[in-house]
Amino acid sequence: MRTPEELIKAIVAEQGEIKDVFLTACGGSLVDLYPGYYFINAESETMHSHWLTAKELVVSPSKFLKKGALVILCSHGGNTGETVAAAKYAKECGAAVITMTHNPESICAQEEMNPIVYSWEDSTNEKDRPQGIVMRILNELMKMQEPSYTKYEAILDGLEKADGIVRAAVKKVQNRTWVFAEKYFEEPFLYIMGSGASYSQAYGFSICSLQEMQWMDCCYLHSGEYFHGPFECTDEDHLYILLMGTGAARVMDERALTFLEKYAKKYEVIDAKELGIDAIDESVNEYFCPMLFYAMSVAYRTGLQDKRRHPLDMRRYMGVVEY
Amino acid sequence: MRTPEELIKAIVAEQGEIKDVFLTACGGSLVDLYPGYYFINAESETMHSHWLTAKELVVSPSKFLKKGALVILCSHGGNTGETVAAAKYAKECGAAVITMTHNPESICAQEEMNPIVYSWEDSTNEKDRPQGIVMRILNELMKMQEPSYTKYEAILDGLEKADGIVRAAVKKVQNRTWVFAEKYFEEPFLYIMGSGASYSQAYGFSICSLQEMQWMDCCYLHSGEYFHGPFECTDEDHLYILLMGTGAARVMDERALTFLEKYAKKYEVIDAKELGIDAIDESVNEYFCPMLFYAMSVAYRTGLQDKRRHPLDMRRYMGVVEY
Repeated sequence: MRTPEELIKAIVAEQGEIKDVFLTACGGSLVDLYPGYYFINAESETMHSHWLTAKELVVSPSKFLKKGALVILCSHGGNTGETVAAAKYAKECGAAVITMTHNPESICAQEEMNPIVYSWEDSTNEKDRPQGIVMRILNELMKMQEPSYTKYEAILDGLEKADGIVRAAVKKVQNRTWVFAEKYFEEPFLYIMGSGASYSQAYGFSICSLQEMQWMDCCYLHSGEYFHGPFECTDEDHLYILLMGTGAARVMDERALTFLEKYAKKYEVIDAKELGIDAIDESVNEYFCPMLFYAMSVAYRTGLQDKRRHPLDMRRYMGVVEY
Repeated sequence: MRTPEELIKAIVAEQGEIKDVFLTACGGSLVDLYPGYYFINAESETMHSHWLTAKELVVSPSKFLKKGALVILCSHGGNTGETVAAAKYAKECGAAVITMTHNPESICAQEEMNPIVYSWEDSTNEKDRPQGIVMRILNELMKMQEPSYTKYEAILDGLEKADGIVRAAVKKVQNRTWVFAEKYFEEPFLYIMGSGASYSQAYGFSICSLQEMQWMDCCYLHSGEYFHGPFECTDEDHLYILLMGTGAARVMDERALTFLEKYAKKYEVIDAKELGIDAIDESVNEYFCPMLFYAMSVAYRTGLQDKRRHPLDMRRYMGVVEY
């Protein structure tokens, strides 16, 4: 199997210039693709990026889904119906595909899918997990395609450092996650906020870690949008988790924090700066915050699982009934 | 003041070809811009579209925000800080702007903003409200720029018919909104689902009509994503509102309905087909569903207001305290 770097070089050699990058999947895999989308949006002068659920790629396809487009997909189990259909459709349209999966026996791992089969062990390095792989692909692509791109080395350095930062942060928050679960395990509802590249993790924390794995009701909010409606719900009884990222978007998280400090009583701040993300160059570390926040969502949901006695792997519908 | 049609013609005459359309605002105004974003994404072969909160446009600007870009903004009160800043920044970058506002005395109504001051009375026609204005602008732009564009007349026809459809639907659901409020006014939490162009109204229904105007906790979901996590919360105690649109995205809403019919007990279906959207040509009526759903959210929130005795205009923070 080719490395992500080999794969993107081969695709560019064959396809020529990439003009559009589509990042598409479902649920938790879709979450993992958002930082790459945000990165291309913010950095590229030659490529547009698109982030959407795999079904929508097929039912309402962009006319830029054609030769010159790169479609990056991800399906952990490798047989997600919508994702497989999106990959096939993208190929029919003339686009190049790269498909990440954890399952080497799956449809997504077939050679025609340009597969990257990733490992998913506790010991797996962050740069070898989907979020890291996407950054490796897109960093190479930016370097090949844009002579003015200056962040290549900083991203490579970030990819080397990310795993250590994440592991240290997981240790650091262990006790906090227990205390959080102890205080809030019976909470009927909470809001989770984030912005920038990390908005994806507010979404993923909500739909995967809590709604799916804990059957806990919650809602994701964009920290910037909080002030244009959702903040009217804030009071001393409502619970919030605020993901504070870095980079230019951080001002939105800081504004939300100031508001929560004044008007809320129950809120948990998960601050990438405090958790060591600054060891990565500040010109790019915002793109690595989502990796860190994903690990934090795992830590917090594990705390909740133990206190609530609700196994993370328990499902009543997914993989259990027909739908 | 120039009409939307005159304005876009003047901009294209001055700027030449439009390559990127940015639709940006905050909160409820951002919601109104989504159908235009979705329309360009689905229909255009010459333009990319972008939809994002106004603050993010400024803190993390696309490199395509330059000459050749059109930025459409909206601020009901006309002085929203982030939106005004985004308009000014876009102009500095060389992009053309069009700014919609209801307030003729506001910053957004100043001549340099290329303003469209819209009326917002009960009698205001849908084509003269922000969602209608955006469709008028983009329909003209598509006609000017893409010789192969075939939906111009169908969109014009839809713009003529929309107001009548919406008014008839509002009458039709009056009793349903009372019954909904009677049954569910004490519900602690609900989920609101939609997809396609109408995903925006699941978002707006949640953050504006319920979180802001009723201080009711809720969460918006994409009907397609529902099956990749959030559906694990579904049971006979959870309340759902499902917005069923038209067009190719409808299959996702139908799948959600089938699931709710089987596993939920409390759900309200608001179906654009049943409410008359089919009077508009089926090649374009999906773009008009969000107008209809907005009117439905007003009808339902009014029912809730009356039963809950929570005035829609009551605020504890917005316009009341500093933040």
